[in-house]
Amino acid sequence: MAEVPRDIENLIEMMAKLPGLGPRSARRAVLHLIRKRGLLLTPLADAMHAVAASARECITCGNIGTTEVCEICTSEKRATGEICVVEDVADLWAMERSGTFKGRYHVLGGTLSALDAVGPEDLRIPKLVQRIGDENVSEVILALNATVDGQTTAHYIAEELEGRCEVTSLAQGVPIGGELDYLDDGTITAALRARKRV
Amino acid sequence: MAEVPRDIENLIEMMAKLPGLGPRSARRAVLHLIRKRGLLLTPLADAMHAVAASARECITCGNIGTTEVCEICTSEKRATGEICVVEDVADLWAMERSGTFKGRYHVLGGTLSALDAVGPEDLRIPKLVQRIGDENVSEVILALNATVDGQTTAHYIAEELEGRCEVTSLAQGVPIGGELDYLDDGTITAALRARKRV
Repeated sequence: MAEVPRDIENLIEMMAKLPGLGPRSARRAVLHLIRKRGLLLTPLADAMHAVAASARECITCGNIGTTEVCEICTSEKRATGEICVVEDVADLWAMERSGTFKGRYHVLGGTLSALDAVGPEDLRIPKLVQRIGDENVSEVILALNATVDGQTTAHYIAEELEGRCEVTSLAQGVPIGGELDYLDDGTITAALRARKRV
Repeated sequence: MAEVPRDIENLIEMMAKLPGLGPRSARRAVLHLIRKRGLLLTPLADAMHAVAASARECITCGNIGTTEVCEICTSEKRATGEICVVEDVADLWAMERSGTFKGRYHVLGGTLSALDAVGPEDLRIPKLVQRIGDENVSEVILALNATVDGQTTAHYIAEELEGRCEVTSLAQGVPIGGELDYLDDGTITAALRARKRV
């Protein structure tokens, strides 16, 4: 495409690196942005510069915020004795949207993975172990994804923390609004095993 | 989500306005950008500013370039007697990727639509009629989408230009690599009607 200006082709290539966008959708997005130069393109570039300048990882929990220690870690309204362990910041945000958990978080930054050579020292696991003592933690809630890597990581952390505090994990079962006919065998088995008296 | 910093939430809201991205994928994209602040976020913001400053529509054909009249319209290598009419710049780029057409373009900026109240004066149709005389055009190739609105627009333009130059349109038929079993009835009917002697 010799006729696409250098600047625009450059922008398309960068946009195509975002998760969820390929070359075609990046082209569409860039054309949309160019059509709305004043309303969207310039403000979006400014918003990106603002985030690039302000965003940083909390040195305690790994959450993304604008200060050295994030708002959740410094909030006096949040319980200090409970830590919810999540894989990444997107999961922390998902937990926050539910609005139920009132303790603090610990963002691992990934999962253990033999294939990708990710060990405990590549994640924030040593820092978690340190926090258990420092913050007088009574319960660690493992809110890790129900994938093989997520569950491997959960088991590893549970062993590391054994005897130091209570370790729990999210319940597995039928999702709210879920239809049995569309659920996989594993979920139904888990829901049946964890059945409750009505 | 009280705990997501204002700047970041602002960026997510803007990203979610892009075609192909919703709230969830915008969040994922923004977290990815924050993780790669130096490598991706700042350069992407700079690239957007560069495009916002340089991109403009060609006053002749509506293509997006960096000059008042685009590179294709000023190129001496491109035939002046043929104009390929497309709906938008993405279609122009698609035609250019095929590398077959060596004439010039005319970007309508949309299609006629009774529902959305888009009339000929909202598109670049008057400018197209003007170009036919100005540029001594012998053939107009209608490369419009095979949708109802696209074909309505094609018929309208063909009537407007009747007797002033030859008007052709892209052939309809079986796409290269296409399997009959997966094609719709309309395409098979069109391909059968336009069958060629082998």
